[in-house]
Amino acid sequence: MPDLHLLSPKGFRAAAVHAGIKSKQTPDVALLICDKTASAAAVFTTNKVVAAPVLVGRRNIRSGKLRGIVVNAGNANACTGKQGLKDAERMCTLAASIAECKPSEILPSSTGIIGHLLPMEKLERGIIEAAQYLGSSREHANLFADAILTTDLVRKTASTEVKLGRRRITLAGVCKGSGMIGPRLDVPHATMLAYLTTDAAAPAPLLKKLLKQSADVSFNTVTVDDHASTNDTAVLLASGVSGAKLSSKSDQTKFAEALTDVCQSLAYQIAADGEGATKVVIINVRRAKSDKAAQSIARAIANSPLVKTAMHGNDPNWGRIVSAAGYAGVPFNPDTCILTLQGTKVFTNGTPVPFSSSQVSAALRKKEVTIDLDCRSGTGQATCWTCDLSKDYISINADYHT
Amino acid sequence: MPDLHLLSPKGFRAAAVHAGIKSKQTPDVALLICDKTASAAAVFTTNKVVAAPVLVGRRNIRSGKLRGIVVNAGNANACTGKQGLKDAERMCTLAASIAECKPSEILPSSTGIIGHLLPMEKLERGIIEAAQYLGSSREHANLFADAILTTDLVRKTASTEVKLGRRRITLAGVCKGSGMIGPRLDVPHATMLAYLTTDAAAPAPLLKKLLKQSADVSFNTVTVDDHASTNDTAVLLASGVSGAKLSSKSDQTKFAEALTDVCQSLAYQIAADGEGATKVVIINVRRAKSDKAAQSIARAIANSPLVKTAMHGNDPNWGRIVSAAGYAGVPFNPDTCILTLQGTKVFTNGTPVPFSSSQVSAALRKKEVTIDLDCRSGTGQATCWTCDLSKDYISINADYHT
Repeated sequence: MPDLHLLSPKGFRAAAVHAGIKSKQTPDVALLICDKTASAAAVFTTNKVVAAPVLVGRRNIRSGKLRGIVVNAGNANACTGKQGLKDAERMCTLAASIAECKPSEILPSSTGIIGHLLPMEKLERGIIEAAQYLGSSREHANLFADAILTTDLVRKTASTEVKLGRRRITLAGVCKGSGMIGPRLDVPHATMLAYLTTDAAAPAPLLKKLLKQSADVSFNTVTVDDHASTNDTAVLLASGVSGAKLSSKSDQTKFAEALTDVCQSLAYQIAADGEGATKVVIINVRRAKSDKAAQSIARAIANSPLVKTAMHGNDPNWGRIVSAAGYAGVPFNPDTCILTLQGTKVFTNGTPVPFSSSQVSAALRKKEVTIDLDCRSGTGQATCWTCDLSKDYISINADYHT
Repeated sequence: MPDLHLLSPKGFRAAAVHAGIKSKQTPDVALLICDKTASAAAVFTTNKVVAAPVLVGRRNIRSGKLRGIVVNAGNANACTGKQGLKDAERMCTLAASIAECKPSEILPSSTGIIGHLLPMEKLERGIIEAAQYLGSSREHANLFADAILTTDLVRKTASTEVKLGRRRITLAGVCKGSGMIGPRLDVPHATMLAYLTTDAAAPAPLLKKLLKQSADVSFNTVTVDDHASTNDTAVLLASGVSGAKLSSKSDQTKFAEALTDVCQSLAYQIAADGEGATKVVIINVRRAKSDKAAQSIARAIANSPLVKTAMHGNDPNWGRIVSAAGYAGVPFNPDTCILTLQGTKVFTNGTPVPFSSSQVSAALRKKEVTIDLDCRSGTGQATCWTCDLSKDYISINADYHT
């Protein structure tokens, strides 16, 4: 696999600068520009409290066409009333003057603290400055990926190539998310921002359908603290420059699989970089009454502070897992299920299975831990990715604002 | 108000001993015996994973009559299969031999770790030993209240007296609960155990109705970690010894109010003693679309780790509160609401209200903090009690088992 990045798909340029919105001396304003009009689709938070950039973004994406994205980190521009809307629109106007397009062809994003007006003077200066540095190199892609981060500790990127007939297309993405993560995009909930680029050509409705499908099995399966953000956004831009059209069913399938791969890689990186996380916890629920029941059970387990602290303590206290499944609000019968913790069966048919507590505890001391719950009562299945809950989560969040 | 306790209502005796089920050298097996048959009602966890004592208790309470309660702490007897059921029944048989009644007139309870068989030898010895110490003094009441505790730091008791015509009745209760708290008893979810005594006389169906009503506005409004336990139980025993019958509507109302007072006092004590808690957080939601919507909003706010850590850090980061309301899954309009944090308006009509961050932060440095959300979109209201989320919660729960 060649060394790909967000700007490997042909037709895109990006730039990012430090405008002084984040207190850290890292980039906090970024532009992603498509040289020609791109087909585009997006999914947004389902929170009833919606940030100004999401309101503007929802409106601008309706045409299925975009020329660019403008993002800032450090301030969410949420709960900011009419001035917030004006500010989000102003971001679009400035970015549009750079891309030489209409403001309605720009999608704005913001992430950071809620309830504070954007420092527009800094932000405007930042956008204008960024325009001077647009480019398509790996460095440009990395700067863009870094600029969208807030409490994240690591840059999150994924990319792949697909051969469609004789043509080769590239698909890439970056995302951010560490706290306020529990995406429900049209479905996510988090402040999760994800930007995906491809040089394939496809009509916007198809992109929307595929993006929703991929988000359901990626971003929407991640939870850090189950707190749905006001700003969650995932956008897919297709420049079409490769000339490869997703016209055949088989090409669509290949593209959909590649898109899901990229989204899942990004989503996994969010779980791994969850605030305070020391490990990823994968929850697989199988043979539940329905997929929906499986999702509810997986999510109840993933969001239980008692399960998350047990995983942090390498503690095979599996009763917390079974009891979380029991309050998920969907059919669940403990008398038929099999619970396997990091490869060791601990509970079957309503009865504990004797196991070596010290051995399982040792097995839990990994960067990735798997909880497998086989409900044996249907064909529904779901997977959820989360992280453990540590004292660092408390430090990060008890002191974030002041 | 005289100095009342669990055994002040006439007709009850209690005892508790250390049988060695808890590792701490404190009482862990307890008996509450009613000298004659009591009218009784109970509400239990709605978790689909139900501990053996709850299965037995649900069956035994059906007659509306009880002679006693037998409880152990340190082991939940949950997820323990057929042997667990036998053990819960054996607890009843032993207690019945002491109360000189049928095993079906005893309600068993257990609280502690899930998935381990009860150490029956110790437990049997404990029950038999406890029988020798039955009495009605304050010391007996205190020992009973202490025996049911697990990670609780303090004893939880409440009591009151009511004059019904010329007769005076007493109503008292004890409870436990610190983690796995989010009662949904018939509704609660926690390991919350509550035992209520009264010397009023009342038929079991009336007691059931009143207990449910009181639980809804007390135990069911508390959440520590929103983890519904497999063992939650609240039981009300009416000895009838006072001779006061709740026959008139006005007597029933007075009794209901007294019962709610006692339950609310106990529930508040659970929030205040939540694992790792340094303060109680009261969430009042007013003028929501419906009571149910208000409850969902209050609970979403109360369960958000981001809200709870902000309260821990005395951080007026109110965006977390509004965004939690937005993902509660019920109607909520940020553009009409007024959010008041510890007496200071911070957000109205979709717009931030300027305030002194340092002053509000200072106001949050209290043992009790109030979040008031006026939705201005209906007549629904609800209150939820929770606590802050601290590093101690992580310590307590990452190391509980091993």
